[in-house]
Amino acid sequence: MSDVPKPASGAESLVWTLLGGGVDVCFANPGTSEMHFVSALDRIHPMRCVLGLFEGVVTGAADGYYRAAGRPASTLLHLGPGLSNGSANLHNARKARSGIVNIVGEHSTAHLRYDAPLSSDVPGLARPVSDWMTISAPGRVAEDAAGAILAARGRPGKVATLILPADASWGPPERVAAPRPLEPSAPVPEASVIAAARALCSGRPSMLLLAGEALRGRARELAGRISAATGCKLLSEQYNARVERGAGRVVIPQLPVPAGPALETFAGVQELILVGARAPVSFFAYPGRPSVLTSDHCVITKLADPEHDLEQALDALAIELGAAQTPPAGVAEHVEQQLPTGKITSEGLAAILAAQIPDNAFVVDEAITTGRVFLPLTTSARPHDWASIMGGSLGYGLPVAIGAAVAAPDRKVIALEGDGSAMYTPQALWTMAREGLDITILVFANRRYQVLLSELSNVGAMNPGRRALDVLSIGDPDIQWTGLARSLGVEAGRAETLEEVSRELARGLASTGPYLVEVVI
Amino acid sequence: MSDVPKPASGAESLVWTLLGGGVDVCFANPGTSEMHFVSALDRIHPMRCVLGLFEGVVTGAADGYYRAAGRPASTLLHLGPGLSNGSANLHNARKARSGIVNIVGEHSTAHLRYDAPLSSDVPGLARPVSDWMTISAPGRVAEDAAGAILAARGRPGKVATLILPADASWGPPERVAAPRPLEPSAPVPEASVIAAARALCSGRPSMLLLAGEALRGRARELAGRISAATGCKLLSEQYNARVERGAGRVVIPQLPVPAGPALETFAGVQELILVGARAPVSFFAYPGRPSVLTSDHCVITKLADPEHDLEQALDALAIELGAAQTPPAGVAEHVEQQLPTGKITSEGLAAILAAQIPDNAFVVDEAITTGRVFLPLTTSARPHDWASIMGGSLGYGLPVAIGAAVAAPDRKVIALEGDGSAMYTPQALWTMAREGLDITILVFANRRYQVLLSELSNVGAMNPGRRALDVLSIGDPDIQWTGLARSLGVEAGRAETLEEVSRELARGLASTGPYLVEVVI
Repeated sequence: MSDVPKPASGAESLVWTLLGGGVDVCFANPGTSEMHFVSALDRIHPMRCVLGLFEGVVTGAADGYYRAAGRPASTLLHLGPGLSNGSANLHNARKARSGIVNIVGEHSTAHLRYDAPLSSDVPGLARPVSDWMTISAPGRVAEDAAGAILAARGRPGKVATLILPADASWGPPERVAAPRPLEPSAPVPEASVIAAARALCSGRPSMLLLAGEALRGRARELAGRISAATGCKLLSEQYNARVERGAGRVVIPQLPVPAGPALETFAGVQELILVGARAPVSFFAYPGRPSVLTSDHCVITKLADPEHDLEQALDALAIELGAAQTPPAGVAEHVEQQLPTGKITSEGLAAILAAQIPDNAFVVDEAITTGRVFLPLTTSARPHDWASIMGGSLGYGLPVAIGAAVAAPDRKVIALEGDGSAMYTPQALWTMAREGLDITILVFANRRYQVLLSELSNVGAMNPGRRALDVLSIGDPDIQWTGLARSLGVEAGRAETLEEVSRELARGLASTGPYLVEVVI
Repeated sequence: MSDVPKPASGAESLVWTLLGGGVDVCFANPGTSEMHFVSALDRIHPMRCVLGLFEGVVTGAADGYYRAAGRPASTLLHLGPGLSNGSANLHNARKARSGIVNIVGEHSTAHLRYDAPLSSDVPGLARPVSDWMTISAPGRVAEDAAGAILAARGRPGKVATLILPADASWGPPERVAAPRPLEPSAPVPEASVIAAARALCSGRPSMLLLAGEALRGRARELAGRISAATGCKLLSEQYNARVERGAGRVVIPQLPVPAGPALETFAGVQELILVGARAPVSFFAYPGRPSVLTSDHCVITKLADPEHDLEQALDALAIELGAAQTPPAGVAEHVEQQLPTGKITSEGLAAILAAQIPDNAFVVDEAITTGRVFLPLTTSARPHDWASIMGGSLGYGLPVAIGAAVAAPDRKVIALEGDGSAMYTPQALWTMAREGLDITILVFANRRYQVLLSELSNVGAMNPGRRALDVLSIGDPDIQWTGLARSLGVEAGRAETLEEVSRELARGLASTGPYLVEVVI
C-alpha cells in the first residue's frame, strides 16, 4: 500500500487527480458501473469515502461540505437514476453556488447502444442541474477530472458533472493530471463603485442587498461600516448559503419569505445596491400580486456579481465613501437570557437557540414555518454560522448537516428540521450514525405541511375542506421520530415543553455523536 | 357539493377532465404551485388523492397502479425538484411501459423570467423521463390533459408529462375536455407471422422470447400451445412488468440477470423469435465480455413490437402453425409442500413463498440477490401476478406495492425487498399505514449491497479490502426494520429462522393492513 500515485486503472488515475486537486472526500452511493472507483479506495487511503443509502443524501452532503469547508467534495452516483435521485439537492447546491465534483457513472461506451434496462439520457438529466458538464472517455478521465475540479472551485462554486463511462474506469491507467490554477476574479469596475457610492450619498433612503461572501468575515464588517457612514439599511437575500452571525458580527436582517412582509421590506427603499445579490423577487407568484418586490420608484444599482470578489468590492466602496475606518453599525452582543419554559412556541424555541447555540456552531436551517422567527430572534447568540435552504427543495437539511460535520469535525452542527422536510431524506440519519457525526437535530413535529396551509389562502383557495386538509396533513399516522432515529442508529429524545427542549438540546450538544430531538408541536 | 362538472378554475377543469378520461386516482406530493389542484379535491369527490411524503413514492405508486389496474393514475409533483425526486421511478415506469399522467406544477408563466429560488428547467428535466410531454397554459389545460390521458393509455402505456403553470391552475374555468378515442393497435404484418412460423418449423433449436402482455392471460396460453406444437423453448425477458404465473399457467422461465447464466441460456438457440421483446443484451457490460447475449449463429426474427396486440400476434402465429387447439405445454400445477424449517436460505424462502402465496396475490419483487431463485422455485404456487423491477433503479418496490394495493383492494399484495433497495424509498411505509393498504412486506436484511459484492469480481476488481467492503456494507449500524416500520405506523415482526418467516408471513397475510417482516439473513 502506498500513497504515491501509481494508478493501476482509469479509476485510480481519477482518484489520484481528485486528491491532487484538493478533493479528498467522496460522498457515494455506487453501483456496478462504479466498482472500479470503489476498488480504488483500497489502494488510495487519503480519499475518504462516505456512504449514503440514497443519492439525495450524497449530493446534499457535498453541498454542506462546500459550505463549511469552502472547497468541493466529490460525489459518486450510479447512472441516470442515481443522478435523478440526487438532482433535487444538486438544484439546491447550484442555488447555493456550492462547488461539487459530481461524478456520475455511465454504462461502458460500447454498451450504450443496446438500451439496457438502466440506460437513460444521462447528459440530458445532468444538464439542468449542472453548471459544467463533460462526458469522459477512456484515456481522458484524469484531464477531465482536473477540468471538473477547476470548474467546481471557481468563484462562485459550480456543480461540475463528470460523466464517467465504466470502460474509462476499468481502462488503462492515465497520467495523474496536475491541478489547474484558478483564475483570479475579475475586479469590480470602478464605474460600479462610483455609481453605488453616488446612490448611497443621494440622500434618498438606501439599502445594500447582500448575498454570498458579502455576509461573512471582513466583507460583512465592511457592510456595517458603510451602513454607519451613510445610514443605508442592510439586508440579505431570503435564503443564504452560509452567514456568519451572532455576537460580534454586524446584524444584517434577512428578506422575509412570505410575499406580504417581503413587499413591505422594500416599501420605502429608493436606492437599492446589489452586492452579489440579485434584484429581489417573490419566492412564488400569487394571483394579482407582483413578482418584483421593489417599488417603481426604486433605482437598482449593481455593485458586484457573485463572480466578483465581494470583499474587494465592499472595500473599494468603503474607501470611495471614506468609511473604511468608520466603526461598523449594529454589531450584535451576546446577552445571557433566562431559558423560557412552558408551552412550545416558535418564539420560545428561538429564545432557547439564542441561549444555547454554542460558540462557532454550524446551524443548518430547514425549519420552514416553525423557524420563521429564528433568525430575527437569535442575533444575540454566540458567534455561529447559519445555512439556509437555497433552492427551496425540501430534504436538504439533514444531508447538508452531514457534509458540514464531515468538513468541520471540531464544530457543533445543529440541524433545525420541519417534520415534512426531514421525511424527504431520512436516510441521512443512518450516515450520521455510521460516521459518528457530531450533529444535534431538532425535528419540529407539527404533523402537517404548515407552509402549504398558509399558501392555500395566499393563492386564493380559501376555506379548505377536509379532503384538501388531508393532503396537507402528515399526521394519521403520526411519525414517531425517536423510533425512526433509533431504527437508523441515532439516539433520540422527545420534548413536549420548552424546558424539555432545552434539556434535550443540551443533551445532544453534550454528546459527540448524532442526537435527534422530536419537538412535539 | 356536486359531482356534476361545473369547474370554478383551470385546476377544476383539469380534475374533471381526468375523471372523464378514467383517471380517478392521483398520487401526490404537492407544493404552493399545486394548491388549486388540492383545493379542487374538496369539490370533486370522485378523485381519490393519495399523499406520498417523497416523490419517488408518488411516481412508483402510479407505476404499480397501472400494472395492476391496466389504466393510468395521475401524479401531482411540485416543480423541477419534485419531478427530479420522482424521476428514478418514472424511469422504471417507462421501462415497464406503464401509462402515467404525470402532472408537474410550474411557476406561473409571468414569474418564470425572474429565476426565483425554485425555478429550474422543468421541460429539460422532464424530457429524459417522459414519452410524451406538453407545457400547458391558461385556457388550454383541459385539452392538454385529454392529450396526456390519450398518450398514457396507448399501447404500450406511456409516461405523459403535463407541465402545469400555476396561472393555468388558478385561471378561469375551461370546458371539460371529452376523452379522446384510443386508436386501435396496428395489426402484426402477415410477413412477420410467416417468418416466425418458418423459423419455428426450420428444425433448428428455437425459442420464443416474450415480454409485456405476451406473459399474461390468453397470450401466455397461446405461447404454451405453440411450444407444444413446435418444441420451441419459451423465455421471458430478465424483468417483466407483470407476469401471470403459478398453478394453471404455462411455465415460462425468466432470462437470468447475471452475465454468465444469461449467456448460457442462449448458447444452443439458433432461431429466436421476439414477441414484444427486444434482442437480448446483458444488464451491464463487463471487461472482455459481449453485450449481446445471442450467439453469432442465432437468427433473430421479430414477430411483434410492444406497440402491437401481442395476443393477436400469437393467435395468428398459432393458427399459421396449426397449433390453435394444441394443448399448451408445461402448465404448472399447485403442489402442497411441507414448509421448510431451520436456517434461512434463499431456497427455503422460495419454498415458503411457493406454499404461502395466496390465490390471486400480487407479488412485487425487489429482492435482488436474495430473490434470484424465487421465480424458478415458485412456479407451483397458487395463481398470482409477479411484478419485477424494470429500469434497474432501486426503490421501486414499496411504492409499486402501494399502487397495486390501491388499484386492487381485493387482492393480497406481497412486497419482497432487499434491505438496500427498501432504503431508497422507506417513506412508502407511511403511505401504506395512512391508507390502510393490504400489503405484506418481507425485507431481506443481509446488511449489505450483496449484488455489488458479486459485481466487484465480475468487473475484475478482485479481493476487495476493508475500505471497499465498507462502502458495500449497510450494516454498522444495522437498520432496525421493525422499529423503522413502527415509527411510520406499520406493524412489524422479525424472523430469524424459516419457521419464523412462515409464521410472520402468515401473520401479515391474515391482517388487512400493512405488515412488515424483517427477515434476518
